[in-house]
Amino acid sequence: MKKFTCVQDIGDLKAALAEAFEIKNDRFKYVELGRNKTLMMIFFNASLRTRLSTQKAATNLGMNVIVLDINQGAWKLETERGVIMDGDKPEHILEAIPVMGCYCDIIGVRSFARFENRDYDYQEVIINQFIKYSGRPVFSMEAATRHPLQSFADLITIEEYKKTPRPKVVMTWAPHPRPLPQAVPNSFAEWMNATDYDFVITHPEV
Amino acid sequence: MKKFTCVQDIGDLKAALAEAFEIKNDRFKYVELGRNKTLMMIFFNASLRTRLSTQKAATNLGMNVIVLDINQGAWKLETERGVIMDGDKPEHILEAIPVMGCYCDIIGVRSFARFENRDYDYQEVIINQFIKYSGRPVFSMEAATRHPLQSFADLITIEEYKKTPRPKVVMTWAPHPRPLPQAVPNSFAEWMNATDYDFVITHPEV
Amino acid sequence: MKKFTCVQDIGDLKAALAEAFEIKNDRFKYVELGRNKTLMMIFFNASLRTRLSTQKAATNLGMNVIVLDINQGAWKLETERGVIMDGDKPEHILEAIPVMGCYCDIIGVRSFARFENRDYDYQEVIINQFIKYSGRPVFSMEAATRHPLQSFADLITIEEYKKTPRPKVVMTWAPHPRPLPQAVPNSFAEWMNATDYDFVITHPEV
Repeated sequence: MKKFTCVQDIGDLKAALAEAFEIKNDRFKYVELGRNKTLMMIFFNASLRTRLSTQKAATNLGMNVIVLDINQGAWKLETERGVIMDGDKPEHILEAIPVMGCYCDIIGVRSFARFENRDYDYQEVIINQFIKYSGRPVFSMEAATRHPLQSFADLITIEEYKKTPRPKVVMTWAPHPRPLPQAVPNSFAEWMNATDYDFVITHPEV
Repeated sequence: MKKFTCVQDIGDLKAALAEAFEIKNDRFKYVELGRNKTLMMIFFNASLRTRLSTQKAATNLGMNVIVLDINQGAWKLETERGVIMDGDKPEHILEAIPVMGCYCDIIGVRSFARFENRDYDYQEVIINQFIKYSGRPVFSMEAATRHPLQSFADLITIEEYKKTPRPKVVMTWAPHPRPLPQAVPNSFAEWMNATDYDFVITHPEV
Repeated sequence: MKKFTCVQDIGDLKAALAEAFEIKNDRFKYVELGRNKTLMMIFFNASLRTRLSTQKAATNLGMNVIVLDINQGAWKLETERGVIMDGDKPEHILEAIPVMGCYCDIIGVRSFARFENRDYDYQEVIINQFIKYSGRPVFSMEAATRHPLQSFADLITIEEYKKTPRPKVVMTWAPHPRPLPQAVPNSFAEWMNATDYDFVITHPEV
């Protein structure tokens, strides 16, 4: 698997679930698997659950972890092409990505939708550049349109709690004080549709 | 021990000191003790000594360490109850704490007095919520009213340098350009009073 | 070696190159060398390549790594001597440095030229204080006037690609939208002059 950004990338869902339950049952079973391997976690946005769970998961696999918060410890990265770089971003992401790839074995990227340009967001420009230029397997820690790790975790939870083989799953719109990216519900819908669940999206009138 | 925030939590002081000296004498004696265990260090405030010494101590015990600087890599956390969360803090600490507890075996918390509300500070609201809701053992890396790691280190130092069995120890007030939390001297006084030292607090006239 | 800030510190260049190629050929050959050793990486400035490559190199040697971004997770440090510390920097670097040295076995420091005082920059005040007061071996991750890790990496690259025993190497001035520290070219020139290469610096007329 060279990338994991959507449900199609994980292959057979039942096999993936079986592997997840195997590891949940014995979390250090594969602690030798990652020996001398390094995960690089790259955050363009804040993270709590995904940051902690991914770092812990890599540790459980015996991997080393390097965490890079862009705009904090590293140089600010110019992410647009064709701009004159005379501002506050001294490095271009297209040069930085292969550098990051040099020093790790797998890369996780978090890069949210920016709400400045719909096409830019939907094209997943940031994570796709990592996939194209890093030379390493890349997985999404939530990108502009999908959040596969959370969707997979949701699926695992439903499998653990479901009381019928083919449960009814309802996702509902809800009000929020500010506009939010839709990566989580988008992604969840795709994963639910990849199962044989009875999946419904509802939009209650306020 | 489910929490370590004050001198009472450490139990018998002489036994604790004996263990400290045993480890100082052979720092990697217990490097297998923490295998596959993870320490999560959570900072609401800046830290140098406590950050470095705690991370190093965990490493000497063979633990993995996850460092989380709240407000930097993670979401800003709402810490008050009953507020309408439509501001810049997208996550409530009461939801975040069990998440943090999920991915580690022990939690260290630094959360200073804020000087906005005396009762709030004295009730140790932040660290007590970690103790109550994380499901993990919690130790203070300096909270609003105490700094037990520093007090214990001070006690160890006094034991190493003292020239009489029951030394006289003097803590003195001193001027500072700005108001400071009193966690360090408060805590030190409590630890000194738990020994049989001759302990005095003095307040020289300026 | 108690410090590594310039080409003279590395000793015989051919021996250093031979060791570099040996490790590039088998990156985990010395993974037991750093067991229970801790590298502390201290950044006063942003870093991408040096941060990632140094952290990875330490990991390949089996070391533990503590990363400290000054002004982020730690206290702001006063770096001048003789100032009245009533501002926003609650700790002086001369007190902080021995603390940092306490909790590690080797220290890497990044501290750029500040362009406020030419003498201050040329005296390498920051890194020299670490060398003098930390009690640990100190290496530069780019200081005010030199960047030995990058120069050594450049030398390794030239050795790998050169087609004659004594290649001609040209370093050229180039325009940049803002004034930049000259640590990288300064350092490169020193390393090239320590080889038997035919080294030239050129300044094209614009």
